This record gives sequence, structure tokens and C-alpha cells, in this order.
Amino acid sequence: MASTSSGSHIRIGIVTISDRASQGVYPDESGPAIVAVLREFIAGDWTPIARLVPDERHLIEAELCRLADDDGCCLVVTTGGTGPAPRDVTPEATAAVCDKLLPGFGELMRAVSLKSVPTAILSRQTAGIRGRCLIVNLPGKPKSIRECLEAVFPAIPYCIDLIGGPCITGTDCIQVFRPKV
Amino acid sequence: MASTSSGSHIRIGIVTISDRASQGVYPDESGPAIVAVLREFIAGDWTPIARLVPDERHLIEAELCRLADDDGCCLVVTTGGTGPAPRDVTPEATAAVCDKLLPGFGELMRAVSLKSVPTAILSRQTAGIRGRCLIVNLPGKPKSIRECLEAVFPAIPYCIDLIGGPCITGTDCIQVFRPKV
Amino acid sequence: MASTSSGSHIRIGIVTISDRASQGVYPDESGPAIVAVLREFIAGDWTPIARLVPDERHLIEAELCRLADDDGCCLVVTTGGTGPAPRDVTPEATAAVCDKLLPGFGELMRAVSLKSVPTAILSRQTAGIRGRCLIVNLPGKPKSIRECLEAVFPAIPYCIDLIGGPCITGTDCIQVFRPKV
Repeated sequence: MASTSSGSHIRIGIVTISDRASQGVYPDESGPAIVAVLREFIAGDWTPIARLVPDERHLIEAELCRLADDDGCCLVVTTGGTGPAPRDVTPEATAAVCDKLLPGFGELMRAVSLKSVPTAILSRQTAGIRGRCLIVNLPGKPKSIRECLEAVFPAIPYCIDLIGGPCITGTDCIQVFRPKV
Repeated sequence: MASTSSGSHIRIGIVTISDRASQGVYPDESGPAIVAVLREFIAGDWTPIARLVPDERHLIEAELCRLADDDGCCLVVTTGGTGPAPRDVTPEATAAVCDKLLPGFGELMRAVSLKSVPTAILSRQTAGIRGRCLIVNLPGKPKSIRECLEAVFPAIPYCIDLIGGPCITGTDCIQVFRPKV
Repeated sequence: MASTSSGSHIRIGIVTISDRASQGVYPDESGPAIVAVLREFIAGDWTPIARLVPDERHLIEAELCRLADDDGCCLVVTTGGTGPAPRDVTPEATAAVCDKLLPGFGELMRAVSLKSVPTAILSRQTAGIRGRCLIVNLPGKPKSIRECLEAVFPAIPYCIDLIGGPCITGTDCIQVFRPKV
């Protein structure tokens, strides 16, 4: 299961966390928006594994663990559930399943969003490492998703190198950075 | 107790945390400074509930809980006790009583204060949600209080909307932001 | 042991955290780089106490405690072990031995490093207080060490004042800041 045939060994989990989208009240636009941005940024083959879960902490934790441990994702990106409302528990679920947290992701995404809206400080998004998987929380809105991915994606391939994951190559649309050794 | 007559249903707790001010060694100037700035920023009626406590973690925690749970405050603002000194325990007390933390408040306040003084990085101020109440730590000095409130206040009314509190309207002195739904 | 003769009462611990440097695979360049920058920034006498430990959390914790508690250091600066790799555990060791954390140090160092490299968000460096000792994590690379120390050093002497440590005076190379009381 760790690697199949051709270049499809890069698996990326995309988890939409939303009570209403998971109940079919409205369609999930955020998950497809993430896939579209990652297709722009990542050169070569990769396989998205998309999931849709309600804002229940134990279900989010179970899904993150499944994608990291069983599906062999080197990257899991979440959308939704990072605000201050009672049902917003994505950062807590993320922290609970991670071995270590990377506070710089949340700091940078909030700083970038703050240029557009002062309510960016209400976002509690974080990132962390679980085994060989990087988990990153993105905001819920498609416009903010692109903005945040543009900010943090340049550091993601090197991060995945450091935790023993596959080599991700960036396209001309984004400036991926790897320090010279 | 949840709501009295006219527009006085918006209750805001202002907690000055200071050993010396609570012992009467000097007058509390920070609490009144917060009330003055909030009067500039909030349109319409609201009721300040001011308290003065020493730098004792259990007393701070008890006061924050009382204002949030019993007095029905939708917002509690603290001043003092956020530095590195042994008696500074306001952030720990805040984190202990909150259901979730909002790291963006502290990040933004430190970034703003850093434009004035390099010692802004010594401030450990944070913010969080307890039930339907937003708790925000401000610095101890009146000048820094205004600077920090100017930075974070634009996001506060929408935050209170999201946690089920009353609708706070900003004055012309501040640009309150609510995203279009 | 608390103070010897002349001006040598200011003791500063410098801890290089690296599996390979501690095994002699390559020489430790980061520890000496920190000493060199601190010599530029601190006026008058001070005593560096340099240590080299592998990336083992319990060894790092023991060394930090020894420098703070037994050697009477008012400042301990670490280098290395702050990234996302499995062996990087310096921030966890630091948090475990500190009475309180100072998130502003990590935020500022990441923001400064981010101007040079987008992978700065992968650094998890933090700072905190243990008794009368300030512990600050720096990155592993000599170039980044200078950049980060230039950013945070101006706040360090006042921080040490606040926790009851000795008075550190800055040289003309750096703008040390102490608020007027």
C-alpha cells in the first residue's frame, strides 16, 4: 500500500470539515478549491484523497489519523472549523493527533489574511507533524484558501523531505524553496 | 439577570490585575483607560463592570469565571500581569478558564507594540473563549492599551456574534468588520 | 557559586544541540558563532558556559536545568533541533523545563527569518523562563543565528532585570531597550 505503480505515490488528503456540507445542506466548494490550487502548484502526478466530515472532534481526529497512517498521505490539508464558534474544533483535533506543532504556519497565514480582513485574528489554524505526514489547517472560504496556500506552500516540499516523505516538485506557478545543503 | 431593561444588555468586564493597585499603593489608571477607549469605539449603551485583583492566579481565574458565567459579560478585557516576572500569571489564568484560545490576538498585539518598543516580545498576552464570552488580555500601560485595542477591536464584534453574544456596533472612530455572508 | 570575584557574575549558557556535532562527525560552528555575536552585543565581562548535547529530549532538559539551576546562568541560548524532523525536540525540551513561555520570541524570529527564506515557518523555536533564567532557542545555522539574535537581543537585558537577574549592558553594536519607569 505504501507505493503503487507509476508516479501516484504522492498522496494528499483533503479534509473538508463542515456540519452543513457533510449533511448535504450545501455542496462542498472548499475541498475542490484546494485540489485546484494544489494542481497548479505541484508538478507531476499526485493523488488527492478527499473526505468530508462534520465538526465533531473525534471524527476529525479519526479521519486525520486514517489519512496519515493508513492511506500513507505525506500531506493532509483541512478546510473549515478554525474559528471561535462552539462547533469549531479543527485546531484542537489537529493538535491532538500531531507529534509536534509548527506554529509558524498559523502565524504566517493569519498575517497574510490580516492584509485583507481584520477578522483574520479570529482564525485559530495551525499545522503539525504526525509520523511522516504534515497536517495543515486552511480557512473555510475558497478565496482565503488560495491566499493561505500561496503563503505556506513554498515551505511544504522541504518540510516533507525532512520528515521522510516523497519529493514534491513545484510548478512555475509557485517558488518552492529547498535550502542548499 | 441575563438582560435588564433598555440597551444595557451589553456587559463588558474590565479586570485590572495588579498587586500594588489592588493594595491601594497607587490608583488604577489602566482600568479607566480601557473604559475610555471602549466608550470611543462602541456605539450605544453598554455597561462596564470593573474589577481589581492582585496577581494571584486563582483569584484571576475566579474573577474571569464570575464575569463570564454569572455577570453575563460578552467581553472581558484584562490589563496587567502579562510579562515575564514571577508574579505575572494573567495568560496562564486566561488559558486555564478558556474553552479555546485565539493566538491571533496576542500575535497582532505584539506585532503592533513592536513598532514602538523592542520589549513587546516580552508580553505573553493571549485571548480566548469561555462559553459566550471573549476574554482578551491587554498590556498594563495606558498608552499600550489604546494601541492594542485599536488593533484588535475591529474583529471583536464579529467574534462575539459567532459565539452567540449581543450585537456590538462600532462608532465612527473605529472600522468594525463583519464579513458579508 | 552564585557570584565569584569581579564582573564574571554574568553567566550565559550556550547549548549546541546536534547528534552529529556531539558525535564529532563535524565541528560545532553554531556554539562559537553565538559566543561571537554575544561578545559584540554585551558590554563588560561575562562568562560563556558552552555545552554540546545530542538531540535527546531528556539530555537537553537536564542540561538546561543544570545551566539555570546549578551554574546560575541568567540566560541560556540553544542552537539546533527546532525543525520538523523526528529528532528535532528542542522546543519540547524547552517548554518542559520552563515556568512560563514567551511566544513573542519565536514569532519575531520566524518573521525576521521569513524575509530571507520561506522555510522559516518550519522553525518551531520558542523561549521561556525557568526561575531566574531566560532560555531562548535559536536556529542551527550561523547566518540565521546572527539574524535572530539581532532581532531579539534588544529585549533580553530588560527581561533579565524583570526576573531578578544581573544587569546586562549593551554595546554600541545593538540598541538595548529598557522602558523608563
